[in-house]
Amino acid sequence: MFSNVCLQSDLVCVLDIQADKTGELRNRFLNELVRLLDNYLQSEHKRTSKVLDFHHPHQLKEIMEHCLIIDQDPKSLEEVLSDCRETLKYCVKTGHPLFLNQLSTGLDIVGIAGEMLTSVADTNMFTYEVAPVFTLIEDIVLTKMLGYIGWYDGEGMFAPGGAISNLYGMLSARHKRFPRVKYSGMSNKGDIVVFTSEQSHFSINKAAMLLGIGQDNVIAVDCDSNGKMKVDVLRSKIKLSIANQQTPLMVNATCGTTILGAFDPLEKIADVCEEFGMWLHVDGAWGGGALLSDKHRCLLKGIHRADSMTWNPHKMMGTPLQCSAILLKEKGVLLDVNQTGATYLYHKDKHYDTSFDTGDKSIQCGRHNDVFKLWLMWRSKGDNGFKDQIDLYFTLSKYLVSEIKKRPRFQLVLEEIEGPNICFWYIPSSIVITDEHDEGKTHLNKVAPSLKALMMEKGTIMITYQPLGDLPNFFRIAISNPAIKKEDLDFVLNEIEELAKCL
Amino acid sequence: MFSNVCLQSDLVCVLDIQADKTGELRNRFLNELVRLLDNYLQSEHKRTSKVLDFHHPHQLKEIMEHCLIIDQDPKSLEEVLSDCRETLKYCVKTGHPLFLNQLSTGLDIVGIAGEMLTSVADTNMFTYEVAPVFTLIEDIVLTKMLGYIGWYDGEGMFAPGGAISNLYGMLSARHKRFPRVKYSGMSNKGDIVVFTSEQSHFSINKAAMLLGIGQDNVIAVDCDSNGKMKVDVLRSKIKLSIANQQTPLMVNATCGTTILGAFDPLEKIADVCEEFGMWLHVDGAWGGGALLSDKHRCLLKGIHRADSMTWNPHKMMGTPLQCSAILLKEKGVLLDVNQTGATYLYHKDKHYDTSFDTGDKSIQCGRHNDVFKLWLMWRSKGDNGFKDQIDLYFTLSKYLVSEIKKRPRFQLVLEEIEGPNICFWYIPSSIVITDEHDEGKTHLNKVAPSLKALMMEKGTIMITYQPLGDLPNFFRIAISNPAIKKEDLDFVLNEIEELAKCL
Repeated sequence: MFSNVCLQSDLVCVLDIQADKTGELRNRFLNELVRLLDNYLQSEHKRTSKVLDFHHPHQLKEIMEHCLIIDQDPKSLEEVLSDCRETLKYCVKTGHPLFLNQLSTGLDIVGIAGEMLTSVADTNMFTYEVAPVFTLIEDIVLTKMLGYIGWYDGEGMFAPGGAISNLYGMLSARHKRFPRVKYSGMSNKGDIVVFTSEQSHFSINKAAMLLGIGQDNVIAVDCDSNGKMKVDVLRSKIKLSIANQQTPLMVNATCGTTILGAFDPLEKIADVCEEFGMWLHVDGAWGGGALLSDKHRCLLKGIHRADSMTWNPHKMMGTPLQCSAILLKEKGVLLDVNQTGATYLYHKDKHYDTSFDTGDKSIQCGRHNDVFKLWLMWRSKGDNGFKDQIDLYFTLSKYLVSEIKKRPRFQLVLEEIEGPNICFWYIPSSIVITDEHDEGKTHLNKVAPSLKALMMEKGTIMITYQPLGDLPNFFRIAISNPAIKKEDLDFVLNEIEELAKCL
Repeated sequence: MFSNVCLQSDLVCVLDIQADKTGELRNRFLNELVRLLDNYLQSEHKRTSKVLDFHHPHQLKEIMEHCLIIDQDPKSLEEVLSDCRETLKYCVKTGHPLFLNQLSTGLDIVGIAGEMLTSVADTNMFTYEVAPVFTLIEDIVLTKMLGYIGWYDGEGMFAPGGAISNLYGMLSARHKRFPRVKYSGMSNKGDIVVFTSEQSHFSINKAAMLLGIGQDNVIAVDCDSNGKMKVDVLRSKIKLSIANQQTPLMVNATCGTTILGAFDPLEKIADVCEEFGMWLHVDGAWGGGALLSDKHRCLLKGIHRADSMTWNPHKMMGTPLQCSAILLKEKGVLLDVNQTGATYLYHKDKHYDTSFDTGDKSIQCGRHNDVFKLWLMWRSKGDNGFKDQIDLYFTLSKYLVSEIKKRPRFQLVLEEIEGPNICFWYIPSSIVITDEHDEGKTHLNKVAPSLKALMMEKGTIMITYQPLGDLPNFFRIAISNPAIKKEDLDFVLNEIEELAKCL
C-alpha cells in the first residue's frame, strides 16, 4: 500500500510524506492507523478479550526482536503500521473494565480525541503567542477547579504528574517561609521539617530530597486503623520538632491515600497548621475528584483552608495520562517562586497582553499541553457528567465491599471504606490465621503475589497487591473506569476463586 | 450525526460511547475527528495558508466564548467535534514551514502516529507490568542515544522537557558529591556553586533554585563573541570560588545555546572539570541532535568525557512535544539518587524480572510515555534518515546566512554560525548605527518587536526576537523542520522587507 514511498522520496522515506502535496498518502496512512487503533479500542471494550497477553521481558524481547531494533535504513509506511500493530498486540489494555491495577484506569473516547488533537496541534504551553487557544483553556479549567475548592482568587498550573504537583506544593511552602532560599540556597537554614502521614505517597519524600530538605526531615505521622492521619500525634510531633530546634514548615494531608483511599481530617489538620503557622498542602491526586460530587465532597471538608492542593484529573476524572494540576489559594506565588524572566521567551515588549504567557510560573521550560483533553471531556460531560461518574465509582465500590463480605475466603482490610479503594485478602483454606505471630501471616504474604502471577499469565484480570505496615500482601482494587459494571466485579471475585484453585 | 447520543445514554452523553457495543459510534466519531485533523495538517503543509490567525487574548475569548465555557449539562459528540474544529481554527500552525518561532518546529506524520497510538495505549511508564512493550522500547532507544555519546555502560530516562533533564543532571552531581543530602538535606553544606555560561538556558537557574543551591550560586561565565564559554574565565572563577570557601560542584556546558546556537568547547571544559574534580553536565537539549550527523558530530567533540547530558529529540529530531532525555555516563546513579522503594509499585516479589520497572529512578511517579513516538520515527527514518534531516538543517542555515548577506538592510549577529540558528537585524534606512552609544540602537531595539507584531497580525510567517547582553532586539530563526525549503527562506526575507514598509 505504502511500499513505494521510499522510492518517491527526495529526502528519505517517510519524510517525503511532507512533500505529499495532495495529502493523499497522509490521509491513507492516518485512516489505516485509526482503523488499527479503533480495533484495539473495540477489543478493549469487549469483556471476553484478555486484559493482557503476558510475556516475561526476555520472551517479549525475543518475540518482538524483528521490529524493536532501529536500523540504518528507513522503513516504508507499511512497516510503520506493522510496528504499530505489533506494539498494540502486547500492550496491557488499561482501558479494559477488568484492568484494575492502578488508580488511573479506563479510556474515555473524548479524552483520546483530545490527545489526538493535542498531538496534531503540537504546541508548547509557555506562551499565548504559540498556544493562544490552549492558554485560554488552561485558565478556564483552572478557574473551574479552583472554584470547586473555594479559592476564588487562587491560581494553578498543570504539571507532569502528581509527584511534580506535590513538589510545587512543598516548593511554594519553602518559598513563602524563606523567600531568600531561591537566591541563596538552603545552606544555614537549619533543619526544616515537613509532616505527612505514614501512608501518604512517596512523592513527598522525593520532593523533600529534591528541595534539599532531605527525607530524614520528612516526619511520618501515624495513622489510625482507617489509614487517616492521627492529628494528636501530628501536634505532638510538631511540638517535639520545635523543641529539637527544627523548623516545622508544612503538613501534607492526603485526600485519598494510595492504598486504603483514606481521607485525612482536613479541618483538624488546618487547625494545627494555623496554630503553628505552617503551610497546608493537600495531596488530592486521587481523592480530589470527589469534589465534583455533591454527595462525596464532604470527604474533603476544610479543603478551602489549605494553601495548596494536588489534583490529578487523570485519576478519578479519567483523562488519558497525564493530567495533574497544582492549585494554590494565593495568586502570584508560582510566578514569584519560579520566575527567571528569560528575555527570549517572556519579554514584555510583545504587542499583546502577556498575562497569558504563564510559562515562567513553571519549573519547566517547554510544557506539554495536558489541559485540552480535560477541557474537551469536561465540555462533553458537563459538571453533571463528572458528578455521575464519580458517584458511580463510590456506588460500585460499596457493591464490591458487600459482595466480598458474602464470600468466606475473602477478607476485607477495611470493612468501611471512604473512597473507591477496596482492599482485601484472599485466604486459602490451607491458611489459618490465629494470632499476630502466626506463620499463617507469612504464608498469606505469598498468596497475593502468587495469584497475581497466575492472573497475569492467564490475562483475564489485573489487580495490584502490596503490604502495608504489618499487614501481609493484600489486593487493592481502585475503581476509576466508568465502563465497569457490577457484573465485572462479580467476575473479578469469581476469577480470583478460580485462580486460587491453582495455588 | 451524533445528536441522539445523549438520549440513548444510560449514564451521560458521551460516556455512552463506552456502551456502544459494536463500536459503530466510536468508529464514526474517530473517523470524523481524523478528517478534521487531516484537513488541519493539509493546511499546515500549504505554503499559501497562514501560519496563524492572530487575535488578542480578549478578542479570542470573545470569539470563542460560546465554546470555551463548561456547562452543567453534557454536549453531544457533534458538539465535541465542533469544539475541535473551533480550536484548530485558532491554533498556531507549528508544523508550517514558515513557523520558525521556536527550537521545536515541524510536524512529522509518523511522530503524530506515535502520539496517537500512545494516547490509545494510555499507560504509565513506571513498570514493565503495565507498559511491557514501552519499557523495552525505552531501553532500546536510550541505549542507542548513549551509543552516540560513547557511553556503553551508561543509563538514561525520558523526562518532561529539557529543564527537568537539566535538573536531573544537577541533582545527580549533587548526589554524587554529597550522597547524604538525600537524607539530611542541604543545611550546613556551605555554599555549593555551579558554573554555566552567561548565554546558557534559564533552566540551570531554575534547577539551582529547586535544589536549594540558589540562583546566586549559579556563577555566570562570560562568552566570547560567538557565544561560547570562555574557559580561562571559567577556570579563574572556579579558583575564586574556592578562595571564597565555596564548593564548586558542576559545570554546565551548552551544546547549542538557545539564541546563537553556540557550542561550548567541551574538551577544554572537561579538562577543567577533571582538574577541579567537578561534574560536567552538558545541556545538549538543542544541539544534541548533531550527534546523529557524521558531518556535524564534531561540534560536540569531547561529549564522552561529560558525566550527564540533556538531549531533546523534540528539537532537532522533530518528535512531537514532548520528548527529552537525561543521559548519564555511570549506570545506577539515577536509581541511587531517587529511589524511595515504594512497596505498592516497586515490590520485588513480582513474578517477572523487575529490572524494567524503572520508575523509581524518576523524580516523578506516573510518567507519560514519551518514547514511543521517537522510536517509531527512528524505526521509520533509520539512522540515515535522521542524519540527512540534521544535515539538511545545517545546509539550509548556511543558505539563509548567505542570502542575508546579500540584502543591504539585513545584518547578521554572527557572520559564521555553528548550529542552525541564524540571528539578524533588519535595519530600516531611517536608522543609522554609528557608535556604541548611538540612539540608533535604542531605535533598533524597537524594530524587531514592531515587525513581529506586524507579522503576527498578517499571519504569514512567525519568527522570534530577543535582546542579548548589550545587543538590541534581533530576530532568531532556528531551523528544525525538514519541510523547509530554500524558497521558504527566501519568502521569509522578502516578507520581512515587505512588512518593514509598514513600520
